Amino acid sequence: MEKINIILVGFGRVGQAFFNLLREKYDYCRARYGLELELRGIVRNKGSILLSSTQRVMTPAYFLTEDLDTLADWIPSITLSDFLEEFGSGIVVDCTPSNLENGEPGFTIMKAALEKGWHVVTASKGALVLRPGELQNLSKEKNVLIKASGATAAALPTLDVGLNSLAGATIQAIEGLLNGTCNYILTRMNEGLSYDQALEEAQEKGIAERDPSLDVGGWDTAAKMILIANQVLGTEIRLSEAIVRGIVGITPEIIEKTRRLDKVLKLIGKCDRESYDAPWKVEVGLALLDREHPLAGINEANKGIIFYTDTMGWVAVSGGKSDPRGAAAALLKDIISIYWRA
Amino acid sequence: MEKINIILVGFGRVGQAFFNLLREKYDYCRARYGLELELRGIVRNKGSILLSSTQRVMTPAYFLTEDLDTLADWIPSITLSDFLEEFGSGIVVDCTPSNLENGEPGFTIMKAALEKGWHVVTASKGALVLRPGELQNLSKEKNVLIKASGATAAALPTLDVGLNSLAGATIQAIEGLLNGTCNYILTRMNEGLSYDQALEEAQEKGIAERDPSLDVGGWDTAAKMILIANQVLGTEIRLSEAIVRGIVGITPEIIEKTRRLDKVLKLIGKCDRESYDAPWKVEVGLALLDREHPLAGINEANKGIIFYTDTMGWVAVSGGKSDPRGAAAALLKDIISIYWRA
Repeated sequence: MEKINIILVGFGRVGQAFFNLLREKYDYCRARYGLELELRGIVRNKGSILLSSTQRVMTPAYFLTEDLDTLADWIPSITLSDFLEEFGSGIVVDCTPSNLENGEPGFTIMKAALEKGWHVVTASKGALVLRPGELQNLSKEKNVLIKASGATAAALPTLDVGLNSLAGATIQAIEGLLNGTCNYILTRMNEGLSYDQALEEAQEKGIAERDPSLDVGGWDTAAKMILIANQVLGTEIRLSEAIVRGIVGITPEIIEKTRRLDKVLKLIGKCDRESYDAPWKVEVGLALLDREHPLAGINEANKGIIFYTDTMGWVAVSGGKSDPRGAAAALLKDIISIYWRA
Repeated sequence: MEKINIILVGFGRVGQAFFNLLREKYDYCRARYGLELELRGIVRNKGSILLSSTQRVMTPAYFLTEDLDTLADWIPSITLSDFLEEFGSGIVVDCTPSNLENGEPGFTIMKAALEKGWHVVTASKGALVLRPGELQNLSKEKNVLIKASGATAAALPTLDVGLNSLAGATIQAIEGLLNGTCNYILTRMNEGLSYDQALEEAQEKGIAERDPSLDVGGWDTAAKMILIANQVLGTEIRLSEAIVRGIVGITPEIIEKTRRLDKVLKLIGKCDRESYDAPWKVEVGLALLDREHPLAGINEANKGIIFYTDTMGWVAVSGGKSDPRGAAAALLKDIISIYWRA
């Protein structure tokens, strides 16, 4: 039995879902993987909470998420550094929002964790797509890992498939249908709705954010594809290098036209290169897919990815919950993968 | 750089493809994974070949597969045991045919390897579905691994997704479209061919075997599903416990009927249980899938699998070459996964 210290940073929707999941899965992880996942503390803007071993995540009543959020005494003077010092080693789980402007606060959090020799498991995209290389190099230097499944399409397996399931194969190209909001809007437009109607419906259902610009502008897809490329292909592509187009401005007429062509319109993130020696490029835009294309049948808010390889042919993955619980499950998977193998 | 001894047993279509792949990927595995995959010898019915370090797999001319097959001097007196003694540790790659009657020669080969503390990577299903538990227990006792990706749908990732990509999630059910021959026949019948026409075409294309009974009878699907269940869910289901039906006797009228219902007919292997406490059951049979079902759009000789989970929703995987090269790529992946992790 191995005891793992976990520090959770960020306590929004994903952070709270992770907190709940850890409580729900504590016994399962003990029994199945021999891992005691001990949440030592939570750090957020307004302060921190220290969960001592007697108050740990499994103890009842007081630690209901809602209680933690509203009632608990968040202590402003306790910082992430205090936790890193106190517990020595383990995993920092970064659930701060993805910031595609400057990568903060994720960058500072991850850097602090890595420098102290902690592993990082993150649901946050910004730092890794704006400043690729910096954190990766630091993690190599400190001999710890950065795992970002939670940032690259939540519960849809992308990184593990690209790295492990395709080990030994050479990946020639990757295509991803990685944004639930865009796919939902396109699916509903294909059923007759206008862009505005479809977006509004997606917002009502909690699929689209109130400000959907990062999603419908293609930026979320681009960030995920870059994360996947940088991890799986070993590139160091930055968000500024990607060609990014979204779905804004798409009309029912365009949808109708694609239907007459017997094609399916999807927002696709693509990573490929012109030749074996050429640099990898990431591009996001609307693509007309044949009905037989493995991503063509993925509808609603579902996502998918396809890898083209030399020895295994193509391999496609779809599904995986996109909600906070799905993202939390991806974070948990990454934690397990650091210590356990089949 | 780690040097890995490999002994290949069986030199049919998959064994030869593995031999070629190892030669093709030797440098890549060195550079990417830090692994020197050294093929030390090949064992087959008519004898063995010892590949000394100066004659190893990368050396040219003499080691063209065809030459090996026809010209090389196979020495009847050298056996697997001799290799195991000579090289001490490493991986035995079992490419002997799947024998669903008595599991031989796979069982004897794998047992011998495990007893001497060698890892086993296998493309052979028989022993693992007829005598589950025996080899697994031996591998645990000897602290070595049995990897069977190559036996469970070649390059389609099934075991790694179930074990690693879904780590932390509880799998509630698995459905697999795991047999290329059956899927090809059903696809072509859906396009108007009769069963016999479709089967004949599949045989002409090298998709179906000359004796297709294990495939069209559902046995291949059952064996794969049992392998997946036993590895991923930790069950010890035997082939004799599965309910197995195939596609024999299916008529154009039945196909036509399913089309009128707006459904898709597929041969599906299923593993589920009635309640959390009930035993897992494996069943193979024709299933009417909704068009939205993630396996419904998988056609021709392609394969797919879907896992239903508590925290990640459903996750489906499709594709992965089914030919000998695809199976060889799965064997190589398993070898890498024993020594390397992302």
